[in-house]
Amino acid sequence: MSKQQIGVVGMAVMGRNIALNIESRGYSVALYNRTGSRTEEVLAENPDKNLKGTFSIEEFVDSLEKPRKILLMVQAGRGTDATIENLLPHLDEGDILIDGGNTFFQDTIRRNEYLADSGINFIGTGISGGEEGARFGPSIMPGGQEDAYELVKDILEAISAKAEEDGEPCVTYIGPDGAGHYVKMVHNGIEYGDMQLIAESYDIMHRGLGMSAQEIGKIFQEWNEGVLDSFLMEISAQILQTDDPETGKPMVEVIMDKAGNKGTGKWTSQSALDLGEPLTLITESVFARYISAQKDARVRASQIIPAMEVKLSFNEEEKQAFIQDLHDALYFSKIMSYAQGFAQLRSASEEHEWNLPYGEIAKIWRAGCIIRAKFLQNITNAYEKNPDLENLMLDEYFLEIIQANHGAVRRVVSQAIQAGIPVPTYQAAIAYYDSYRSEVLPANMIQAQRDFFGAHTYERVDKEGVYHFLWNEGKEVQIED
Amino acid sequence: MSKQQIGVVGMAVMGRNIALNIESRGYSVALYNRTGSRTEEVLAENPDKNLKGTFSIEEFVDSLEKPRKILLMVQAGRGTDATIENLLPHLDEGDILIDGGNTFFQDTIRRNEYLADSGINFIGTGISGGEEGARFGPSIMPGGQEDAYELVKDILEAISAKAEEDGEPCVTYIGPDGAGHYVKMVHNGIEYGDMQLIAESYDIMHRGLGMSAQEIGKIFQEWNEGVLDSFLMEISAQILQTDDPETGKPMVEVIMDKAGNKGTGKWTSQSALDLGEPLTLITESVFARYISAQKDARVRASQIIPAMEVKLSFNEEEKQAFIQDLHDALYFSKIMSYAQGFAQLRSASEEHEWNLPYGEIAKIWRAGCIIRAKFLQNITNAYEKNPDLENLMLDEYFLEIIQANHGAVRRVVSQAIQAGIPVPTYQAAIAYYDSYRSEVLPANMIQAQRDFFGAHTYERVDKEGVYHFLWNEGKEVQIED
Repeated sequence: MSKQQIGVVGMAVMGRNIALNIESRGYSVALYNRTGSRTEEVLAENPDKNLKGTFSIEEFVDSLEKPRKILLMVQAGRGTDATIENLLPHLDEGDILIDGGNTFFQDTIRRNEYLADSGINFIGTGISGGEEGARFGPSIMPGGQEDAYELVKDILEAISAKAEEDGEPCVTYIGPDGAGHYVKMVHNGIEYGDMQLIAESYDIMHRGLGMSAQEIGKIFQEWNEGVLDSFLMEISAQILQTDDPETGKPMVEVIMDKAGNKGTGKWTSQSALDLGEPLTLITESVFARYISAQKDARVRASQIIPAMEVKLSFNEEEKQAFIQDLHDALYFSKIMSYAQGFAQLRSASEEHEWNLPYGEIAKIWRAGCIIRAKFLQNITNAYEKNPDLENLMLDEYFLEIIQANHGAVRRVVSQAIQAGIPVPTYQAAIAYYDSYRSEVLPANMIQAQRDFFGAHTYERVDKEGVYHFLWNEGKEVQIED
Repeated sequence: MSKQQIGVVGMAVMGRNIALNIESRGYSVALYNRTGSRTEEVLAENPDKNLKGTFSIEEFVDSLEKPRKILLMVQAGRGTDATIENLLPHLDEGDILIDGGNTFFQDTIRRNEYLADSGINFIGTGISGGEEGARFGPSIMPGGQEDAYELVKDILEAISAKAEEDGEPCVTYIGPDGAGHYVKMVHNGIEYGDMQLIAESYDIMHRGLGMSAQEIGKIFQEWNEGVLDSFLMEISAQILQTDDPETGKPMVEVIMDKAGNKGTGKWTSQSALDLGEPLTLITESVFARYISAQKDARVRASQIIPAMEVKLSFNEEEKQAFIQDLHDALYFSKIMSYAQGFAQLRSASEEHEWNLPYGEIAKIWRAGCIIRAKFLQNITNAYEKNPDLENLMLDEYFLEIIQANHGAVRRVVSQAIQAGIPVPTYQAAIAYYDSYRSEVLPANMIQAQRDFFGAHTYERVDKEGVYHFLWNEGKEVQIED
């Protein structure tokens, strides 16, 4: 009996769809699920496919070609550990486990190390694109043993999304152990930032300019034709132009303003805090979801603290100019967010010795994933020109754009603040820009305070060394050369 | 031979100073340090004191009255664990270990639980006030077994700072296990926020108004006479009026603008992210330190991205009005920061079932610690009026102030942004205010996007239930009642 080319464990929607995707590219696939009825279901719904249902771990493992390629699509966390433990006694040296779950990168590092002892390869891979992406072409971010990646490369390339620009598959080897899941985590963080920027843009037009959902949807549709062309802009335009069949109101206005989250944005921010990276925009977007979730408290507060939303008063020409400003501000802020995200990748890459391929990462985000956008090609270009680029802002192409657009952000933020509309991510964008290009920041004041109350010492601007000042005696002491 | 009333392990500066503080209140103190020469040194420098040097763990433990009271002033982390392991075989049920280090609260929870098995009490206590505070009166935040606290209460009260207002000791029982160290952590986070707000105020006056360090120092000195009266404002005024003896320049201008940190601000932000609390202002202040530390990158960027600091152009009257705005904005923003910090305490208290005494916490911060300020009395008053106060903003006293002052913040932030001066914490303050008092936030847009690409579902504003919309079919499906 011939063996299957790859096996998929976990027949929930993501695992099922990815198995069907693999099969559709001409591969034979073994399926396994802890509860066999799920497997039966998939087989019944997909007759005449090159799928082999298996109903025990032994049968599953036995059905696979060696070295075995096993894709785990199970609940991240304990589910993954339990599945690995069940598989382990039946595997051989050289077999390849691929974890396609939304796994915390530190868990992937741990598992990669743990399995390496038994000679089992472990690839932790980010898969973005939701159910649709899984079925027809996601963006795939695999990390682990590079020689193991070479053995599954063909399959991953076959099932991945293809970039419109050049037909290239949206998958590339990201780096050792946790690199793939780390990059997927930052992808999700960037997704939070993009979504919050769009939400604030909507709010400014809605509360500030008094525009209807339909009108705002049309603006987003126009924006989606230009530099802001992206999946999230596209669906936002569609959402805003969709009415509730029940009430006839715009869908967005019947949906409760409480944003949930699955924790990957939080992880990105916590990692930034550990790395010492100023990931302000994404972190503000995580916090914005948190405060949105405190709906009851906000309703109570709104009854006590008087509202002050003043419509921005513009004539038609000024209004059009302001909307153009908003467009430019959004582009500027997106660049700041990606600059922060890529700076964090750089910092993590150094910390973990991952040698991340920044340009390739932007490239594989061009299709399949939630943040897919035209704009990513420019990031790839920037890193192809200069693989050691310190910050995206400093790339010629982006430099020109941010210089042309920073005035727009300043106007938009000032107007929003005057109108009482919170714009935490727009604000974060301009503060990052102004901080990063400031040769001198007022941290000298902070360092002086720290030295005053805690003898934490300081450096000087005019000579080497580490110093402490005796503030009550007016004397400086050199602590180190 | 009579036994000592308390023992102190660790003769670095904090341990030494706190031992001297305890002795000065009439207690006999046993000293122990891993390296005996340190202990000899303390004894030699402090003759005729009621201090007993000991040079082995056995001798140290033997020298103490039962139940033994042992204060650990050792390096947080492994140092603490190692010391506990060394002491443990020599202790008896009912003995009390007090960890006075800057310990991560989860470690304190773990140690409290671990020791409880052997009947050893474990108090984790925050001690704020630096070396000076330790010697003459710190603010003390003890958490652990309440009955054990009762046995050390007299000593802690004796050595603590006393509030100027009413002479009350700055120590109170905070709550079980990690509560004390958690509260100390948030204290430090608030300290980061206060410091960054002062630094931004300095920057606005320095870069924006072109004022000298001396002039700004005088303004801070005036502010320190009113509602902004605080230790940090006081030392900032002194710092700004101190010149470098070597160059004659203001000290603040020869100090390098790279702010260090010891990680407690980071912990506070990471905990907020875990709890789902929007701790934006403190987190921005942590990130502001991070970007300040990227000095070399900023210097390079400043040579590529043209500066745009325009002096704010005001006539004398306008300038005075703007400085008054800055004062009011600072007060407003401080209130927002404390509102966020106390909201986080509330959330942590629920999570860990600590039943934190918010009013008492504000009370014991009135003296001894780095954030000591007149203003804290108003927080105590607010919680005494209403122990279940949901958010500081909603207290009558603070409500009146923030309503009077929010316009000032809007003007200050707008001006700073126009002038290219980054004001991340001022911005965070106004965005928090505007978000918290917004009945409707644009998170409906985010929730619609999440439902569109990931079927993450949503609630409706007009009826109960959980729904998913089939966006391409224009149909809603109810998922849950």
